[in-house]
Amino acid sequence: MSNHNSARRTALAASASLGEADSIVVSDPTNLRYLTGFTGSNGAAIVWTGDDRADDRISTDGRYITQVAEQTPDLTAIIVRDCPAELVRYAGTVRPGSRIAIEGHVMPVADYRRLVDLAAETGSSIVPVGDAVERLRIAKDPDEVELITSACRIGDDALARLIARGAIAPGRTERQVARDLEWAMFDLGADAIAFETIVATGQWSAVPHHRPTDAVLATGDLVKIDFGAVVGGYHSDMTRTFVLGSPADWQREIYDVVATAQRAGRDALAVGADLAGIDAAARSVIADAGYGPRYVHGLGHGVGLQIHEAPGIGAAASGTLPDGATVTVEPGIYLPGRGGVRIEDTLVVTDAGPRSLTTASRALTAL
Amino acid sequence: MSNHNSARRTALAASASLGEADSIVVSDPTNLRYLTGFTGSNGAAIVWTGDDRADDRISTDGRYITQVAEQTPDLTAIIVRDCPAELVRYAGTVRPGSRIAIEGHVMPVADYRRLVDLAAETGSSIVPVGDAVERLRIAKDPDEVELITSACRIGDDALARLIARGAIAPGRTERQVARDLEWAMFDLGADAIAFETIVATGQWSAVPHHRPTDAVLATGDLVKIDFGAVVGGYHSDMTRTFVLGSPADWQREIYDVVATAQRAGRDALAVGADLAGIDAAARSVIADAGYGPRYVHGLGHGVGLQIHEAPGIGAAASGTLPDGATVTVEPGIYLPGRGGVRIEDTLVVTDAGPRSLTTASRALTAL
Repeated sequence: MSNHNSARRTALAASASLGEADSIVVSDPTNLRYLTGFTGSNGAAIVWTGDDRADDRISTDGRYITQVAEQTPDLTAIIVRDCPAELVRYAGTVRPGSRIAIEGHVMPVADYRRLVDLAAETGSSIVPVGDAVERLRIAKDPDEVELITSACRIGDDALARLIARGAIAPGRTERQVARDLEWAMFDLGADAIAFETIVATGQWSAVPHHRPTDAVLATGDLVKIDFGAVVGGYHSDMTRTFVLGSPADWQREIYDVVATAQRAGRDALAVGADLAGIDAAARSVIADAGYGPRYVHGLGHGVGLQIHEAPGIGAAASGTLPDGATVTVEPGIYLPGRGGVRIEDTLVVTDAGPRSLTTASRALTAL
Repeated sequence: MSNHNSARRTALAASASLGEADSIVVSDPTNLRYLTGFTGSNGAAIVWTGDDRADDRISTDGRYITQVAEQTPDLTAIIVRDCPAELVRYAGTVRPGSRIAIEGHVMPVADYRRLVDLAAETGSSIVPVGDAVERLRIAKDPDEVELITSACRIGDDALARLIARGAIAPGRTERQVARDLEWAMFDLGADAIAFETIVATGQWSAVPHHRPTDAVLATGDLVKIDFGAVVGGYHSDMTRTFVLGSPADWQREIYDVVATAQRAGRDALAVGADLAGIDAAARSVIADAGYGPRYVHGLGHGVGLQIHEAPGIGAAASGTLPDGATVTVEPGIYLPGRGGVRIEDTLVVTDAGPRSLTTASRALTAL
């Protein structure tokens, strides 16, 4: 990936988000991984504006001395514990009096204040900037889409395996179903679980982010399952809601509304589409059916190196979708004390329209 | 846990770390959980100084409206997306012109700047303070120690199970061994894996934080395994290093040095013991044996709601251990290109001395 990584640093170096800065010290671990390939838990990189990458550096501590040489062969590594501070010192030697951007939405104010003092020693200054790297990360390249596709396929296959062997059935616990799903994903080649698997039965399905307990699945329950896999650092995200036994009228009603809304949301995905407009396409279906107050979250989010990343797709979102964006569409209706339905896919936005990378059936399925 | 949580807020309210502040807005997710019991991914709480908890509030967004009522019944919840901002507004209505602390080591500088402007609207001010909650978290109460003990036992039992069935053997891959260990932990009741399991064989054992690959275990390899479980939110952490077949002299030598150093580190744990002194007790053993430059990290760290938390035990650490601290002791020697050894336990510090919560054999074991 080092060619990609170098090209990504050059793209960052040209980003308008950097304003008048001469360099940026990137310390967010995911952004660092995106720009360098390095996956350690402590590190930072400095990227200089312009096309010359010769003075770019990565920094990490002694635990990662071998790993950083392996993962980031194209950058000289500075081995030290306090990486951002060392890179600010380094910037002061390369170019005293320069303007060094930091990630203002990530860096703690206490660290920022220390760096301001440190930079002043070489006449340099620290400039907080916004989510420059996160914006670059929205449009995925083909290799990234391939990894997300692999992660989505593992999710699809794991769910199909559980359904085929009757693992989602009355008498089992939420926790058992969650563990089965996670084991199946590992067995199918997942490097990790994308997030704490949600299995929520009966009244708990009305809790959008329920954690699985020893609650027992019972006939008549809605069972909401929200889960994903990680492959090569990239995540998948899918939700399906089932009914155990014959659906009651109220269950069928909210399921149909959510499915129609989710379809409308997926259809609204397009290169250049307005984010708030996408949200509205799905939300209006639920509002028109009278369930507006029972849909308590946004429509979706970007998926990539993080399970939740830019762009957020919600009523208050601004901006549009670029070619190659990978996002979720996940409306829901939650009736407290009774049950809830959410249907979620991970899709990639292309010039030829949206393509769903998760493909499990979206029809109401009785188990 | 709500009684604990309320008592913890009162302890925070009395903390010297708050200085002249009238309240503190806590937004770090782990600190928020510690103080309130709430485990959602977005939230904040305001805690007022003094013993009166009536004006304390928690805030989270609509996804967690049911969950917060369940987990934090003793605090009124304000449901909104931008929680810290809303709590600053709330503080301005309860007590205009007051000094509101925030977690300066956690809150991004961009968020801090917005809060400063917002507070000014009611004549209030924002005061960055340090790791007040993290300091409280160092000394565990008996319920916390019990959960960590359970997590450690699961780790011990999972490792014993793998050894008993010959799962750590030539011909298997690092990834297979890691997956087996994780599945065994889930099967034994773990809620989650504490961190990405490290299985590092042969030359990879010289990489302190190696990620498991399809590398195949071979006779003559050192195999380093670093792993843990989560129970009720609390973590365990243990490392054992094995040899496949008869140990070579150099393997036995570095193993003995690390084992002696680890024993010295464990013995140095005591209520009131100086953190840097504990590090030195172990480090001097390795340095005296001539391997100082091959021991590239600190001796240990606190373990609790996070896998790495305060206190850090290293050469540059300051402070002492309180009664009830749960910490790791984990020296290592890493010979690049050849192999490495690390031995790590999780221990609780008591007036009666240190007690290791991980109990797998520390003798050099040939598999």
